[in-house]
Amino acid sequence: MHLDFAAARAETERLAAPLAAEDMGAQSMPDASPTKWHLAHTSWFFETFLRLAPFDPAFATLFNSYYEAVGPRPPRHRRGLMTRPTLDRVLSYRAWVTEAVLAQSDPPAAILALGVEHERQHQELMLTDILHLFSLNPLNPAYAPPPPATHGDAPPLDWVEHPGGLVEIGHDGPGFAFDNEGPRHAVWLRPFRLADRLVTNGEFRAFVARGGYLRPEWWMSDGWDAARAGDWAAPLYWRPDGRQMTLHGEVDLDDAAPVVNLSWYEADAYARWAGARLPTEEEWEAVARTVPVEGNMGALRPLPARPGQGPRQMFGDAWEWTASAYRPWPGFRPGAGALGEYNGKFMVNQMVLRGGSFASPVGHLRASYRNFFPPAARWQFAGLRLAEDR
Amino acid sequence: MHLDFAAARAETERLAAPLAAEDMGAQSMPDASPTKWHLAHTSWFFETFLRLAPFDPAFATLFNSYYEAVGPRPPRHRRGLMTRPTLDRVLSYRAWVTEAVLAQSDPPAAILALGVEHERQHQELMLTDILHLFSLNPLNPAYAPPPPATHGDAPPLDWVEHPGGLVEIGHDGPGFAFDNEGPRHAVWLRPFRLADRLVTNGEFRAFVARGGYLRPEWWMSDGWDAARAGDWAAPLYWRPDGRQMTLHGEVDLDDAAPVVNLSWYEADAYARWAGARLPTEEEWEAVARTVPVEGNMGALRPLPARPGQGPRQMFGDAWEWTASAYRPWPGFRPGAGALGEYNGKFMVNQMVLRGGSFASPVGHLRASYRNFFPPAARWQFAGLRLAEDR
Amino acid sequence: MHLDFAAARAETERLAAPLAAEDMGAQSMPDASPTKWHLAHTSWFFETFLRLAPFDPAFATLFNSYYEAVGPRPPRHRRGLMTRPTLDRVLSYRAWVTEAVLAQSDPPAAILALGVEHERQHQELMLTDILHLFSLNPLNPAYAPPPPATHGDAPPLDWVEHPGGLVEIGHDGPGFAFDNEGPRHAVWLRPFRLADRLVTNGEFRAFVARGGYLRPEWWMSDGWDAARAGDWAAPLYWRPDGRQMTLHGEVDLDDAAPVVNLSWYEADAYARWAGARLPTEEEWEAVARTVPVEGNMGALRPLPARPGQGPRQMFGDAWEWTASAYRPWPGFRPGAGALGEYNGKFMVNQMVLRGGSFASPVGHLRASYRNFFPPAARWQFAGLRLAEDR
Amino acid sequence: MHLDFAAARAETERLAAPLAAEDMGAQSMPDASPTKWHLAHTSWFFETFLRLAPFDPAFATLFNSYYEAVGPRPPRHRRGLMTRPTLDRVLSYRAWVTEAVLAQSDPPAAILALGVEHERQHQELMLTDILHLFSLNPLNPAYAPPPPATHGDAPPLDWVEHPGGLVEIGHDGPGFAFDNEGPRHAVWLRPFRLADRLVTNGEFRAFVARGGYLRPEWWMSDGWDAARAGDWAAPLYWRPDGRQMTLHGEVDLDDAAPVVNLSWYEADAYARWAGARLPTEEEWEAVARTVPVEGNMGALRPLPARPGQGPRQMFGDAWEWTASAYRPWPGFRPGAGALGEYNGKFMVNQMVLRGGSFASPVGHLRASYRNFFPPAARWQFAGLRLAEDR
Repeated sequence: MHLDFAAARAETERLAAPLAAEDMGAQSMPDASPTKWHLAHTSWFFETFLRLAPFDPAFATLFNSYYEAVGPRPPRHRRGLMTRPTLDRVLSYRAWVTEAVLAQSDPPAAILALGVEHERQHQELMLTDILHLFSLNPLNPAYAPPPPATHGDAPPLDWVEHPGGLVEIGHDGPGFAFDNEGPRHAVWLRPFRLADRLVTNGEFRAFVARGGYLRPEWWMSDGWDAARAGDWAAPLYWRPDGRQMTLHGEVDLDDAAPVVNLSWYEADAYARWAGARLPTEEEWEAVARTVPVEGNMGALRPLPARPGQGPRQMFGDAWEWTASAYRPWPGFRPGAGALGEYNGKFMVNQMVLRGGSFASPVGHLRASYRNFFPPAARWQFAGLRLAEDR
Repeated sequence: MHLDFAAARAETERLAAPLAAEDMGAQSMPDASPTKWHLAHTSWFFETFLRLAPFDPAFATLFNSYYEAVGPRPPRHRRGLMTRPTLDRVLSYRAWVTEAVLAQSDPPAAILALGVEHERQHQELMLTDILHLFSLNPLNPAYAPPPPATHGDAPPLDWVEHPGGLVEIGHDGPGFAFDNEGPRHAVWLRPFRLADRLVTNGEFRAFVARGGYLRPEWWMSDGWDAARAGDWAAPLYWRPDGRQMTLHGEVDLDDAAPVVNLSWYEADAYARWAGARLPTEEEWEAVARTVPVEGNMGALRPLPARPGQGPRQMFGDAWEWTASAYRPWPGFRPGAGALGEYNGKFMVNQMVLRGGSFASPVGHLRASYRNFFPPAARWQFAGLRLAEDR
Repeated sequence: MHLDFAAARAETERLAAPLAAEDMGAQSMPDASPTKWHLAHTSWFFETFLRLAPFDPAFATLFNSYYEAVGPRPPRHRRGLMTRPTLDRVLSYRAWVTEAVLAQSDPPAAILALGVEHERQHQELMLTDILHLFSLNPLNPAYAPPPPATHGDAPPLDWVEHPGGLVEIGHDGPGFAFDNEGPRHAVWLRPFRLADRLVTNGEFRAFVARGGYLRPEWWMSDGWDAARAGDWAAPLYWRPDGRQMTLHGEVDLDDAAPVVNLSWYEADAYARWAGARLPTEEEWEAVARTVPVEGNMGALRPLPARPGQGPRQMFGDAWEWTASAYRPWPGFRPGAGALGEYNGKFMVNQMVLRGGSFASPVGHLRASYRNFFPPAARWQFAGLRLAEDR
Repeated sequence: MHLDFAAARAETERLAAPLAAEDMGAQSMPDASPTKWHLAHTSWFFETFLRLAPFDPAFATLFNSYYEAVGPRPPRHRRGLMTRPTLDRVLSYRAWVTEAVLAQSDPPAAILALGVEHERQHQELMLTDILHLFSLNPLNPAYAPPPPATHGDAPPLDWVEHPGGLVEIGHDGPGFAFDNEGPRHAVWLRPFRLADRLVTNGEFRAFVARGGYLRPEWWMSDGWDAARAGDWAAPLYWRPDGRQMTLHGEVDLDDAAPVVNLSWYEADAYARWAGARLPTEEEWEAVARTVPVEGNMGALRPLPARPGQGPRQMFGDAWEWTASAYRPWPGFRPGAGALGEYNGKFMVNQMVLRGGSFASPVGHLRASYRNFFPPAARWQFAGLRLAEDR
């Protein structure tokens, strides 16, 4: 476990390395956080829940995200104004916490494991948040150098059939899982089919071209309102003239790659336009349990589906919006104390995403993993996979 | 069917009769509508979907609520500014539409039935909306004269046990149902128990007294934010000193009666504080199918539960917030054309309510009836019933 | 004095007579008030400051506009929700107050006079507010029947010369004036000239046609921001195709008539575009003192200037935005008590208007009269007159 | 002139030196700008208006503040998100621009002088903006080390008498002045008296203690609304327990020093409470012309008035809010082209401040200098001096 811990800590710092101090300090919107805050908050998490001797008593408050039971915290929308402590001091804080944890002979394994997965979640958020920041910069800064060009088209879409019936869903087993992945339980599914790959940029471009953002009939009422209020005319980072802002800067849109940076509203509208629907999270999980957890995790960009048969891109290219609102599994009980706030108190006004993205850390994903964001959120690496009734 | 139609039209007018012309014109918030608008819009519904010859071509636009496929409409938040047409003209419009429908020899039965149930929905909204308006008036106007006093306490809470298993849910049968009540389908339930009556004012008062609105641990994160932003310290119409604003004006709070005018957030927090939870809509329906659709519909106020055994107050005292987000039943398809917008496009950001309230019209409710409102909505006559895992 | 009082009370009621009860109840924006509120508030003013026996104790609070020293009041933006007291009761209140004042053998003359002029101010506001309400109604209701057509063009613009020097400004004399019109004091003016008539619709149409609303160089920075935020493309009530919403409903724009319903920002931008400027209020008053107080008061619409020589339209066609911010005259002291709040506490963030409009009551205007509104306000009957340095 | 230029450039960099890169990147509110932006914008000003060869074509847009005639610019509220160009590159830009100007053999003197004074204005803004940023940081960072303690009380307030009459106001002479300081013109003043020193923290504390922020009678209506909306209970940087946030971090409040960081509303309310009023800008200038331009410029904090006679603290301790709205002097004409936007387009919705503050650069102030801010602005180093009619 200490190995995972040390590796996760180092990986976070590796991800921050390409950035300037100023890049790490800025907060582009209340939903996003500065890199520096991610660096500090993930340290605060171990310091607080492993009850380390405090590095600086002030930090207990400064880097609390939302744990009411731990105490007060600065307002979320002001994280970009915390220019002190400076980056150097935050890095010292990180080093101090890392060392203190490694010095523990027998840390509580459950908390240590949770802290590692928590850190991995923030690794992905660091990338989503920095892209959002850079996307607002007229200079179109690149987080990473240009990638090798990809070739070829996406394979034609095919369907994976599922007979439905009584299916067991949710985490159950020896490995780590977040509390919201359990308890394991039975659900009754109707027969359905699931697309064998993600929806591509090229497919989504057809939706845009045929008035997808101009005609209300495909949209939820709230989604139509959001689209008009936000002047949505294409996925978040699409630019005019077939360009797209990415972690590699502004590049040509790759028609074969999965579409990302959709809100749930856009994913849902596309599916309806395509004569299909989003899968429920139970349907998705029923299929995902049958395939290995493999994919382009850490690739920094979504890649086209490989040719082949059966479900592909289930993990690691784009988070997949599902038809399911985020609510507790039957029998769910959050833990006692502050850690019970980790997931449980967000189970309303959000939609579930499954799978994982090119920015998800290796080793972090599972078939039972439940990610969740509000339906208007667009800055995550989220796309969709179609489903149908049989 | 024409009988139901004529009765529904007359009932709407009976409900408006106690109001002054000015009362009928005001809109107290964007979510509520003026009585005059309800009178007109329910007429517009028949005129439009039964394709009557238009009374006044301008009205086609004026009284469209949200049907994008029908065309434009005035902004919702400005309904209170439509002082023209005046009430007299709207009443003429009503009479004209009523007569035109009655003159049809063979109107499409499905549309006629939908129009009648639509009108009944607006009957309840007229009451929720007028109470909201009056609640903001320093004079505390009463819609109806004071009711006879009630006596006695609520019976002690008992539980109804359910074994779980595979259960059929959703409307199926000859009678009317909205499209969102089907298709009928199987769900797998774990064993649970349901409270045999609603939570009372007295019980909710204990939650308030013990800091229910002051401590975040019982609340969803969004709920806690909403409560602080809105300065919530008790249910919407509770006043200091044990008073409550009602359709009868300001009266003493009746501890034995069901608590109403809760948001979902408050209902959910109360249930958690009480060591229980909200039922899912499937759990609720599984029990509700076993009891007749009887209750205090049209009573203008919620009444204490009768002594007895088994589930009581399942219909007609207070809408019951459930644990379920409002999403389509498996296999749901909205109808083609504008009427497909009736329910389908609202299936996100809302929570399901079941049962019905003292303001629901007689004959309008069913075990499969799915009502829905955003979790922060407080002006509906909504309370809760507790549930537990077995 | 009692004669003026009785006439003013009757005139208010005459102005309300063409309206339906619903028209009188609605509030189209926080800056405007319902007719019913004007009817009641002007009565409250006499009741409160003449210390009449209260008609209904609740009204003391209900109809207070902004007098902090008198006590609390309902929030301004909710005046349209006060459906009770109903119109009938407000009319009874008016009658009761009128009678009580007339029954006073020797009411304090200064307060009575102030109350009469206060009532006259609200007479104009009733018309500005009802036009704003009707302008938002898709039916374009008319407050008054169509007027006789006007003929001919506006006379060519000529200039009135003034030599500048030391000039006495401000009210001084036996007649009534508001406290903000004094004290009389000397100001030193540079030589200037003033246009002999108001800017016309035709002239303003040229400004619009030549990109007046599309190019920032004519605008104050705040004005340009307001114009873009509000999508301003022409004066408030101009409609496409040369139509204009007026108290007579939607009519053809009369190019010869003065332009009205401008914000200060638009008036200021027009003047700069025209190579001129707005006059200061001191310049305006220096000229206005030389002409009789005559004009089209009560005409319900602005009329073209008559041919002739010398300053015309100084009173009674359109309020004239001046170059002056509203600040106290040197030596100004508001009165003691609540009536000191009448004008003094509004002397910031507003620009001065002079003259009077077609909606100003006969007998209400003076050369020293200082009207004032925020620079973004557009719903008053305000236009402009050009000035230049000599 | 080149000497002044080089000194001003160096001084700007000296002021930035104590800050970390992150401090220089953050924007604490839309009205404030990041230090890095100030460093770049002052360079852009010379580059643009002296028509230098561009350092980087993208910068022409990036660092335009508000000159519409120059072209587009990033939205003001997003200046803190411009993490690229990084600080290093902005410093290179500065050096490049400085060198290019020094290399010009005969730059246009008027533009060069304007650029130097423009740079000095931003030197003060860098300090006001960084203090605002640091004031929101729970760590209370200090821009500068603790100052030596001051001793003693403020001298008792005395009055400077002025007989009034015809007075010449406005800049006229060989030295530099902004366009808004002229033309020189005559004004007629009534006799008045001016306090011989600024209002102190101790005096303002009495206003707070006696309910100054709790009772509306001293306040303009807009000010009272602003105070309630913003929860104002003391000057901006006062903390509980007699502490105050300053450029030296949080320190004890010095009762003898001038009060600063007031809005105009607070200054105006204090003056009324004290039985006096604010001076007009003409009154202030009439007195200021009689004293040398001396004071504590660059002191980083306001110092108590020295004992003595006659007007003191007229320059260099705290900007003094005046009774005057910011409008053009008679005969004012802004220059042609983009530089005409420097002052002229802001002449509405602002109040004039006179004098200068402890953060004003040496050599920057004049008796005719007209500073201006909206009446709700609190983050400038602004206090007040009392005046009275004689």
